[in-house]
Amino acid sequence: MKKEEVIKIRKKTAAFLKKAHIAITPREAENIEAADCGLGDIEHMGLQVVVYENNKRYCAKELVLFPRQAFPEHRHPAAGGGNIGKQETFRCRWGKVRIYVPGEPVSIPKAVVPEKYRPYLTVWHEVVLKPGDQYTLPPNTIHWFQAGKKGAVVSEFSSTSTDELDVFTDPRVKRTPTIE
Amino acid sequence: MKKEEVIKIRKKTAAFLKKAHIAITPREAENIEAADCGLGDIEHMGLQVVVYENNKRYCAKELVLFPRQAFPEHRHPAAGGGNIGKQETFRCRWGKVRIYVPGEPVSIPKAVVPEKYRPYLTVWHEVVLKPGDQYTLPPNTIHWFQAGKKGAVVSEFSSTSTDELDVFTDPRVKRTPTIE
Repeated sequence: MKKEEVIKIRKKTAAFLKKAHIAITPREAENIEAADCGLGDIEHMGLQVVVYENNKRYCAKELVLFPRQAFPEHRHPAAGGGNIGKQETFRCRWGKVRIYVPGEPVSIPKAVVPEKYRPYLTVWHEVVLKPGDQYTLPPNTIHWFQAGKKGAVVSEFSSTSTDELDVFTDPRVKRTPTIE
Repeated sequence: MKKEEVIKIRKKTAAFLKKAHIAITPREAENIEAADCGLGDIEHMGLQVVVYENNKRYCAKELVLFPRQAFPEHRHPAAGGGNIGKQETFRCRWGKVRIYVPGEPVSIPKAVVPEKYRPYLTVWHEVVLKPGDQYTLPPNTIHWFQAGKKGAVVSEFSSTSTDELDVFTDPRVKRTPTIE
């Protein structure tokens, strides 16, 4: 992503956090990760992240999703050294998020995703999180998620995060740095 | 603590979380931990906790402190099985909290603590957290903390929590269950 676009996305993200009454420092605001996954279409497919802490034992992030913004299907495989893959808990703080995981597919999914991404969304069991709701995903479980029409702010608590190892269903996805 | 007192403390805690715009479920509200540490003086020395997740890899909690409420000095020792002791990150979400840790003692501490507890507060290096600020405490580090005059809401991200192993400086402290 171009620097100007990243700056625009960071400002928009900070405004969502303000609406959700979540404080971040000016330094954190300047370092918000804008993850477009190399698809060049971040408003539809991507995610904004504030990493609070990521060490050898645990990780905590704030995820910000714009209205109907989705994050592509992926899983967190074993990372070596006895790490069986990242386990993560999503806790909705503001707005609404739908997480799609393996299991009985929902009959009428509420997700609204552009046609070009649909072949790479293979799990359709729908878990809906409103503020105060949370869901824990076992290691190496395929999942994707999308915010509702207002967007969403979601706290992620997890074991150590190793984003670079994530395996995505869509071969076009690249977990590229925020600014190229 | 008596059941009626616990219910009162839980209601007060829920009101603080509401002021801080942090959503919890009705079930979480009914299970808020009121930790008086066996001292029978929770408004001065104690803590309210909502445990979001505590598994074999990580833990996430919301800590609520009433105005000037302090939590007694303690450390998290090695817990066996390769666990070198709980490591924890405190992130202030609302209000103000002062964490006291080993290091250069502050010349004029802002903490206000009843005389009877002071002999058991031995570390006086002061770390002040306002909303958006955070601090990570290495395993087995002695610490205690106190909210400012408005109280505080603090997210705690950590390795697995094993409260029952905590070692307190004050021999009177017992990490008793919320309701006896």
